Amino acid sequence: MYNHSELKEVIDRALINLSYNTEASRLIDPVKYILSMGGKRLRPVLALMACNLFSDKIDNAILPAAGIEVFHNFTLVHDDIMDQATVRRNSPTVHCKWNVNQAILSGDVMAFISNDCFLQAAANDLAKVLRVFNKAAIEVCVGQQLDMDFEKAPVVTQSEYFRMIEMKTAVLIAASAKIGAIIGGADEKDTDLLYEYGKNLGFAFQIQDDLLDIYGDAKTFGKTTGGDIVANKKTFLFVKASELAKEKQLKQLQNLFSIQETDPGAKINAVRDIYDQLSIRAITETLANDYISRAFSMLDKVGTDPKRKTELVNIANSLIGRDQ
Amino acid sequence: MYNHSELKEVIDRALINLSYNTEASRLIDPVKYILSMGGKRLRPVLALMACNLFSDKIDNAILPAAGIEVFHNFTLVHDDIMDQATVRRNSPTVHCKWNVNQAILSGDVMAFISNDCFLQAAANDLAKVLRVFNKAAIEVCVGQQLDMDFEKAPVVTQSEYFRMIEMKTAVLIAASAKIGAIIGGADEKDTDLLYEYGKNLGFAFQIQDDLLDIYGDAKTFGKTTGGDIVANKKTFLFVKASELAKEKQLKQLQNLFSIQETDPGAKINAVRDIYDQLSIRAITETLANDYISRAFSMLDKVGTDPKRKTELVNIANSLIGRDQ
Repeated sequence: MYNHSELKEVIDRALINLSYNTEASRLIDPVKYILSMGGKRLRPVLALMACNLFSDKIDNAILPAAGIEVFHNFTLVHDDIMDQATVRRNSPTVHCKWNVNQAILSGDVMAFISNDCFLQAAANDLAKVLRVFNKAAIEVCVGQQLDMDFEKAPVVTQSEYFRMIEMKTAVLIAASAKIGAIIGGADEKDTDLLYEYGKNLGFAFQIQDDLLDIYGDAKTFGKTTGGDIVANKKTFLFVKASELAKEKQLKQLQNLFSIQETDPGAKINAVRDIYDQLSIRAITETLANDYISRAFSMLDKVGTDPKRKTELVNIANSLIGRDQ
Repeated sequence: MYNHSELKEVIDRALINLSYNTEASRLIDPVKYILSMGGKRLRPVLALMACNLFSDKIDNAILPAAGIEVFHNFTLVHDDIMDQATVRRNSPTVHCKWNVNQAILSGDVMAFISNDCFLQAAANDLAKVLRVFNKAAIEVCVGQQLDMDFEKAPVVTQSEYFRMIEMKTAVLIAASAKIGAIIGGADEKDTDLLYEYGKNLGFAFQIQDDLLDIYGDAKTFGKTTGGDIVANKKTFLFVKASELAKEKQLKQLQNLFSIQETDPGAKINAVRDIYDQLSIRAITETLANDYISRAFSMLDKVGTDPKRKTELVNIANSLIGRDQ
């Protein structure tokens, strides 16, 4: 059994050692740049953990797991263009460091570098793995579409919000766990359970991410920015608050989210006041916890020795800031 | 054996019947739009012809062939953004009809719709087919990179030009023929020959395309526009003329290709005069013919009944305007 930090190291090494086999350094430099920015590598680590749940041999899962991370970074490069984001992980985004055309094209090539990584899966598993991956990749595009549509929508319901984060975030995390399980040799029942485990984890992860934007503990999670509020992003907190708000609060909230505030600090404080009045923090924390519990109930049903599940339990707890 | 028009019909039908399995019509409408623009469907038709060369059963090749066409159209959508092209096949380009963000995202989803089409290949062939496809897809991105780099380069040599069209155009046509052959059950020697047949066809196709821009016979090939000249595009004609030009002609040519001419007709005529002085038309026609001959010499070595090769011979001849 491998632990979390061993698996992260395996992935980091695999990403550094990716061979591009091309003379076009202008095309590939942005790929190396975004992949070198680091990060938790949540999706590939989950894929390896899910593989390791069923098999002591994880070799055939390493490149497919890296492929998932390359795909994820491809979506970041293109999303940053669409969102006109200038900074990612304290560095300039690809389209800012180079230009929009370069970011489109270097993003595109990542989609096929990613595809090629899956060919390391055993021939028997390949079609199954790719069916899961392609479905998730298409759904991630649907999720980005819904997210873009939300920007122009005056109202977003809870069910619309959940559909968006399901597509944009949860399905790829779900697919990561399922792909790992397939390569590890799990049967259909268990691969489906891993998918549901990952999906619930994905929901918890996104809701927690929404929460940390304003209530994050700098010590544990890094900087609190209120960036979502400044950008008028329709997060779970906003959607839930809109649902619970009395008439006057709703007007205030909609007004705050429709203007480009000149004083971001004042705007963040005003929104936080409304959230506090409506107990949004506690509601959100409870919901993230619920999703983690649902993830665990899926994991419980998986037919392996419970001891093998420790890493998948720990990573879930760590996502919502629980001590391990 | 199927003839050309039967195979084109098969592909057109497959593209119309593609199932997208998603609620996001905003995402998919641009996909349907670009795929409905029509065109020769050269790549998928070649794939089916290559499959049919080895097998009377082409069913397993239909969706993979359609996938190649979806991929090709994905590159058109993104290239049109990068080139700021406003018109394609007499209709507005996707980013003009919708917007740049929509064109990026709807392009992206096409990459994965395309991937998913390959899963119709038999399990035994899948890894082989995808290895060929992914390699070509990555090389097409390299080709677009080289093409973008050319815009800023003062000089482009013949070998640089051929490397660019090899990557941007020839390898996908080559991969189409090879993928069809693999699915048709050809052995390695024959699939490699089909690849080389396709690659030579691709070179001929691109050189002919460069030629038709200025010397096209409106009756046979559609409108002659001189669009490449107006856009200062470094075509084979320009590269060859630059190589053959005497000092004074070279200066004229470089001057003509460095300015934004206010009178496009005058510019086209001036460039054509230089090309005529240097016999560029005859040189280009000879070269396109050479590539077709090389394609035929590859096809000759393929170990099937020569009668089965008729369609692959005819389509090659038709690409350079030879009567069939």
